[in-house]
Amino acid sequence: MGKGGMSHGETKDGEEENMAAWLLGVNTLKIQPFKLPCLGPHDVRVRMKAVGICGSDVHYLKTMKCAHFVVKEPMVIGHECAGIIEEVGSEIKSLVPGDRVALEPGISCWRCNLCKEGRYNLCPDMKFFATPPVHGSLANQVVHPADLCFKLPDNVSLEEGAMCEPLSVGVHACRRANIGPETNVLVMGAGPIGLVTLLAARAFGAPRIVIVDVDEYRLSVAKDLGADETVKVSTNLQDVDQEVVLIHQAMGTGVDVTFDCAGFNKTMSTALSATRPGGKVCLVGMGHNEMTVPLTPAAAREVDVIGVFRYKNTWPLCIEFLSSGKIDVKPLITHRFGFSQKEVEEAFETSASGSTAIKVMFNL
Amino acid sequence: MGKGGMSHGETKDGEEENMAAWLLGVNTLKIQPFKLPCLGPHDVRVRMKAVGICGSDVHYLKTMKCAHFVVKEPMVIGHECAGIIEEVGSEIKSLVPGDRVALEPGISCWRCNLCKEGRYNLCPDMKFFATPPVHGSLANQVVHPADLCFKLPDNVSLEEGAMCEPLSVGVHACRRANIGPETNVLVMGAGPIGLVTLLAARAFGAPRIVIVDVDEYRLSVAKDLGADETVKVSTNLQDVDQEVVLIHQAMGTGVDVTFDCAGFNKTMSTALSATRPGGKVCLVGMGHNEMTVPLTPAAAREVDVIGVFRYKNTWPLCIEFLSSGKIDVKPLITHRFGFSQKEVEEAFETSASGSTAIKVMFNL
Amino acid sequence: MGKGGMSHGETKDGEEENMAAWLLGVNTLKIQPFKLPCLGPHDVRVRMKAVGICGSDVHYLKTMKCAHFVVKEPMVIGHECAGIIEEVGSEIKSLVPGDRVALEPGISCWRCNLCKEGRYNLCPDMKFFATPPVHGSLANQVVHPADLCFKLPDNVSLEEGAMCEPLSVGVHACRRANIGPETNVLVMGAGPIGLVTLLAARAFGAPRIVIVDVDEYRLSVAKDLGADETVKVSTNLQDVDQEVVLIHQAMGTGVDVTFDCAGFNKTMSTALSATRPGGKVCLVGMGHNEMTVPLTPAAAREVDVIGVFRYKNTWPLCIEFLSSGKIDVKPLITHRFGFSQKEVEEAFETSASGSTAIKVMFNL
Amino acid sequence: MGKGGMSHGETKDGEEENMAAWLLGVNTLKIQPFKLPCLGPHDVRVRMKAVGICGSDVHYLKTMKCAHFVVKEPMVIGHECAGIIEEVGSEIKSLVPGDRVALEPGISCWRCNLCKEGRYNLCPDMKFFATPPVHGSLANQVVHPADLCFKLPDNVSLEEGAMCEPLSVGVHACRRANIGPETNVLVMGAGPIGLVTLLAARAFGAPRIVIVDVDEYRLSVAKDLGADETVKVSTNLQDVDQEVVLIHQAMGTGVDVTFDCAGFNKTMSTALSATRPGGKVCLVGMGHNEMTVPLTPAAAREVDVIGVFRYKNTWPLCIEFLSSGKIDVKPLITHRFGFSQKEVEEAFETSASGSTAIKVMFNL
Repeated sequence: MGKGGMSHGETKDGEEENMAAWLLGVNTLKIQPFKLPCLGPHDVRVRMKAVGICGSDVHYLKTMKCAHFVVKEPMVIGHECAGIIEEVGSEIKSLVPGDRVALEPGISCWRCNLCKEGRYNLCPDMKFFATPPVHGSLANQVVHPADLCFKLPDNVSLEEGAMCEPLSVGVHACRRANIGPETNVLVMGAGPIGLVTLLAARAFGAPRIVIVDVDEYRLSVAKDLGADETVKVSTNLQDVDQEVVLIHQAMGTGVDVTFDCAGFNKTMSTALSATRPGGKVCLVGMGHNEMTVPLTPAAAREVDVIGVFRYKNTWPLCIEFLSSGKIDVKPLITHRFGFSQKEVEEAFETSASGSTAIKVMFNL
Repeated sequence: MGKGGMSHGETKDGEEENMAAWLLGVNTLKIQPFKLPCLGPHDVRVRMKAVGICGSDVHYLKTMKCAHFVVKEPMVIGHECAGIIEEVGSEIKSLVPGDRVALEPGISCWRCNLCKEGRYNLCPDMKFFATPPVHGSLANQVVHPADLCFKLPDNVSLEEGAMCEPLSVGVHACRRANIGPETNVLVMGAGPIGLVTLLAARAFGAPRIVIVDVDEYRLSVAKDLGADETVKVSTNLQDVDQEVVLIHQAMGTGVDVTFDCAGFNKTMSTALSATRPGGKVCLVGMGHNEMTVPLTPAAAREVDVIGVFRYKNTWPLCIEFLSSGKIDVKPLITHRFGFSQKEVEEAFETSASGSTAIKVMFNL
Repeated sequence: MGKGGMSHGETKDGEEENMAAWLLGVNTLKIQPFKLPCLGPHDVRVRMKAVGICGSDVHYLKTMKCAHFVVKEPMVIGHECAGIIEEVGSEIKSLVPGDRVALEPGISCWRCNLCKEGRYNLCPDMKFFATPPVHGSLANQVVHPADLCFKLPDNVSLEEGAMCEPLSVGVHACRRANIGPETNVLVMGAGPIGLVTLLAARAFGAPRIVIVDVDEYRLSVAKDLGADETVKVSTNLQDVDQEVVLIHQAMGTGVDVTFDCAGFNKTMSTALSATRPGGKVCLVGMGHNEMTVPLTPAAAREVDVIGVFRYKNTWPLCIEFLSSGKIDVKPLITHRFGFSQKEVEEAFETSASGSTAIKVMFNL
Repeated sequence: MGKGGMSHGETKDGEEENMAAWLLGVNTLKIQPFKLPCLGPHDVRVRMKAVGICGSDVHYLKTMKCAHFVVKEPMVIGHECAGIIEEVGSEIKSLVPGDRVALEPGISCWRCNLCKEGRYNLCPDMKFFATPPVHGSLANQVVHPADLCFKLPDNVSLEEGAMCEPLSVGVHACRRANIGPETNVLVMGAGPIGLVTLLAARAFGAPRIVIVDVDEYRLSVAKDLGADETVKVSTNLQDVDQEVVLIHQAMGTGVDVTFDCAGFNKTMSTALSATRPGGKVCLVGMGHNEMTVPLTPAAAREVDVIGVFRYKNTWPLCIEFLSSGKIDVKPLITHRFGFSQKEVEEAFETSASGSTAIKVMFNL
């Protein structure tokens, strides 16, 4: 970046100007200067090297909002990222310039009850990359707390480091659902979240995993990633009962935990019906807001519905999974782009088009 | 019973004939002879003294079914009961004739995984009083496993013993939701189940309990039973948001756990919206089968939905609560009837009419 | 304090000088000026009104050390305290001058794994009042993080506020041992820690509590505080077996959880032997360092030994217990002293003498 | 067995006589006839094919007792076993003659509180193979409840089936200590129990396992079985501190859970000292009865000591581990013997000699 000749992001006197991808309005992303905040004693300055595009990033670009968050002022986008330490704050001893790190994007308050009880992902004062009004990390450099920057071992690449963020969603879901070597798992939906949940469930020891989708291609990817069986389903709500039969046949035993990684009436109805008495359904995807589902019969079998929001304390485990080879996220990275205005636009178009793109990654 | 002079239930030669209330068809209950099974080595024979009417009993009488259970052949009704030991099996040392006992109504298989893991209430081979095709306990005598008959201390009456069954629903719900002295509780619905849940939550130490209903009278009963605050609501789904505000005002702090003891779209929508991030909603009531509720926003705050089915291992704790005075169920018993054909019919009519009847009890 | 006339702790020009009780050497405590640190944006300045003496304070005074902590430089003593807010930092909205608050004494780092997982009491970088080299709170004023200062309701006195600290030890122990309405509790030792554990266990709903000590007077205090039964024991290790019989008789049912609030070979041996299969022994007291105890037979009955260190997130619950009347700590406060050199010395002598002193409290 | 010519265990008229290895006194084992009990409706009759020798079997042979159990009358020995179904009771549908099964040796009462709560391994009325006065399974045939006979898939041999019993000890320990992909594990002792615990911990996902022993050969076996690092230690109690340093170096990170599979003062002292704050020590081995260990400093770091007794609900998971290849127990089987008087004696001598024997197996 900026070696030999002057590029954008470098001022005339050789001092680099920090550039970032700003979300300025619906379908409007521009690379513009982004002034870094001061480096506090517990912070580090990181040169970004790999940033992935998340579905929420695309959602913000298309609608300027996501869930109940609304972008009201120009905001730097991006939150799946890894880079190299450039500078460390005065109190930091655990990291040095040159260290390759993956960044956990959310800074919680550590003063509220939820933080103190260890559920910091639910902190009401969370400051999270690219969740308005907080700027994101698709930039040449960012300043971030050192305790949220996790050193990558030599055998984990920066792109894999950036993948810790989506993988964390699957890891957190598996932890909340208590996946282990006795848990037979059903995954509803083979999109990016369904796939990282599949990978995480396998790494937590799930002996048998069946995955369900409407799309043959996605199912073939899931199969390649290690699903034991796949079940192709329709979008027709009236097919739930017969599809539950197919799922049970594919599983060959009781479904202990189902992850609904789509979050639609039909996927959740299937999840609730397919799960064994005393099992759990973990709602990960967020397709429908209000849902019409057979909740009462599920509750009467003590099938609990577990919610998940982002993640907490997941980076060390993700890095262990990547480093040990228990999880290989590289096949998920289907497209790569550089950090120019043109490529940023292309990258988001590619990600939005869906079809065969799983994860679109920037190499900065 | 049957002393001096011959009553129904006694044959000419002085040997008593066992009589029971048989459900023969829709709205048809008849007191008829009921032959007792043999007394096994681990069984006891119990003379019934107090039997309560449950909502499910009324449901069977009106429709011959309840949930997915259908009455296909004549069946003795009743399952909330207590009585006096008449005879004990050859292996029984813990009970003797004359002991006053409360009966847990379900006999599980102890061979399936769910039984072995301690979740016997989910046993697929459960034999449960008055759940077809198993006969119930509204009878002069029943034979039952000794380990499901719990001795009552002197200061707990047989009627209170019979109340252990409905109280167990509240106790099991509180256990599953992990109620303790740090759990502020919201109860949706002040019917019999809502009231026993209120009593149980208080006994588990809940510091603050708000209860919600559409009916002023029920709320006044709940207040008398110890609710800290009551909130009267409508049946209009569009009032959810403003009622959540009222509930939050009444609670004065976050709602940690909500028990939905009604189980309708509206009560569950209110429950999901009113509960704090990281809290739990426990679905106890079974009003609607399919539900249309804002499940996704609740899941995104990690509000888990906990199901309950009956109870397990609850009798000792119920008896401790009654004996210690932590719970007083006597105010719930609003009507009493004898065990004659006429009174049985009247009793079920009273229970079905709802209005001011909470618990209708037979004294046999 | 310092109204009308000049007292120590006030300088000539009317500006108050902050005084504190400094531990200068073995058996040497002096009231001397203590310069307050700057008030940070998230801090408050609190005028101390009630400070209790803890066994560890006495230990430091007598030996200049406690556990593995050694006092190497002069240190202000005291950590059980409550006071009145004098000034709040620029970011503080939840507290205002005049608020009466109880202080949680430990400031953890919130950057290590243990903090992030919600076990901040185990933080290796904890800064804790009067644990060297951190100064304590037996002073006219202290500066402390606002989120560790908990507002007292009107019906909880400042002295009771100061008692939240020792009470927190019992509350944390009860939480770790999962005490509830089904847990029959044995408490070994009726000293200050045994007594707060007794009070906490009752507030968590323990239906039956037996307490054991070598001292009749202490047992009579425990009885007055609500113990169901007391058992007087010897200090002779060979009496364990027969004392376990007495304990079982006093309990009348299985011992689910034992709190060893003494921590000697004999108390721990009794605890391990008396607890039912599948129960827990919680080691609270710290009498012996190395212990000779029948650990293997206990482990073979799956009696788990649970450790406790201080507490976390206990102040809100303690205040709720005090405010609701579930716990009354006032009987524990047996002696009161003012904050003069002479009274400080007398107070520590009184506390050290043991005998009938339970809690010695300063009123500043 | 008994093919071609008449062997012991077959009567003249062609009807087989059932033979078993009877423990008749210290060091006295005799193969003698053993009359089978009647086949109940829920029982099966199993022809034994593989029976392993456990340390407790050897202990009974050498001393006629083990822990607090004493052999007072002649008793058939053996409890690690697998065989082939010969006959099924009238109610059994899940098994048919010819099925290959592994046997769980303990029959619990299912009437006590511990059974009902899912902790049936602690049942006070347990009837367990070769725990006096209950006969064991080193016999041609046994009658056993069908729900304790677990069908083996084609790719799991009968010998591996018999290994489910010792493996269950490791699996139960891992479950109680909650081993998963985030738990770095230390194993004290590389004997048979240490080795199955090592295998189980790996199968539960432990990322890093260090094992400790005094014997080079055992450590080399552990290394071959997958231990990441081994540490050779002394039997000198004064070496604990420096060995903890070596263990920490070998682990390279905090020790989350330690399994003490030896159970001596020194191993437990090392375990307590080596485990990180908030970690767990699981006491599996039973070397010393009374232990002198630094329990208080461990408790003050909230290191909990977890007990284990046998196992519960482990067979299905063991079979899954064996079938999936997550665990390979075949290297543990170091010696094989037939079921003749001479070979039985040799087999027990081999097992007792220790040295290089890990598991000695009978093929019947």
